[in-house]
Amino acid sequence: MPGAGKGVFRKIVQNSGFSVVTMGDVVRAEVKRRNLKATPENLGKVMLNLRELDGPAAIAKQCVPTLKQKTGKMVVIDGIRSLVEVEEFKKHFPDFVLVAIHSSPKTRYKRLVNRKRSDDPLNWETFIQRDLRELGIGMGSVISVADYMIINEGSIKQLKNKIIQLVAKVLKDE
Amino acid sequence: MPGAGKGVFRKIVQNSGFSVVTMGDVVRAEVKRRNLKATPENLGKVMLNLRELDGPAAIAKQCVPTLKQKTGKMVVIDGIRSLVEVEEFKKHFPDFVLVAIHSSPKTRYKRLVNRKRSDDPLNWETFIQRDLRELGIGMGSVISVADYMIINEGSIKQLKNKIIQLVAKVLKDE
Repeated sequence: MPGAGKGVFRKIVQNSGFSVVTMGDVVRAEVKRRNLKATPENLGKVMLNLRELDGPAAIAKQCVPTLKQKTGKMVVIDGIRSLVEVEEFKKHFPDFVLVAIHSSPKTRYKRLVNRKRSDDPLNWETFIQRDLRELGIGMGSVISVADYMIINEGSIKQLKNKIIQLVAKVLKDE
Repeated sequence: MPGAGKGVFRKIVQNSGFSVVTMGDVVRAEVKRRNLKATPENLGKVMLNLRELDGPAAIAKQCVPTLKQKTGKMVVIDGIRSLVEVEEFKKHFPDFVLVAIHSSPKTRYKRLVNRKRSDDPLNWETFIQRDLRELGIGMGSVISVADYMIINEGSIKQLKNKIIQLVAKVLKDE
């Protein structure tokens, strides 16, 4: 969910030498290919159009060739938002595991308020609306069936330690 | 989610002297009131009928008077499955907090297989279908916006300790 700590996760695994494939980059690349500006509006439209053309797993499908090119013991996919995407990745990668990070709404709100630029303040209402948008496309179902869950209510340092431990555990278990 | 440890949670808080209101009991009471047998089929039909008559928060609404009669520092509601139910409870109880328990699908499956009677075996397919039914009514959204999350991948003893710690924390924080 927004503000749970996905960005820290990405940074840690990248710094540890693992590749990260960001699902949003597929949309950004397609916007560029269509000679459009990367405005939030165009990104949203192209995302919807890709799904119209190729179904709800469209973005995931486009990530598969990129993922197959990557080397190393583990590749991280950033930005899974629905169960159909999970199914798509599992089809191609039998060792696929799903990791979720949970923080309470109160904690996530505080983080997002601190992160926001002061000329564009965030209020609780807007925050809840954004949560509901993410949940509306099935994010909650993905989180609930995660193979590994990290609770992130403390400091970034604590989160970093949890992520490093988790990566070691995943590489050992799977 | 099924097999995550909800039953252990209920038992622990009851043994600690707190009241538990089980949402399924509303449906069971209504089935009895209508002079029907408490078969899974009748329970399912009456549940749907209550929602038809009084909207998706019907079961939650019927729990409110029972909850208000309870005394003690804390009352536990067992069986919340959608965000409208959360909203209903928040409206009546400003100190409402939402607790979720997470276990990986692999762990939950193992537990449910062990719990099942041998004449009615559970397979992975049936397990996934049951998960999808729960997620289909919005369970994933509820889990994702929990104020407190417990990870339950270990023993019952470990879970018990986590629950006791959580209850103490909630009573202190809220």
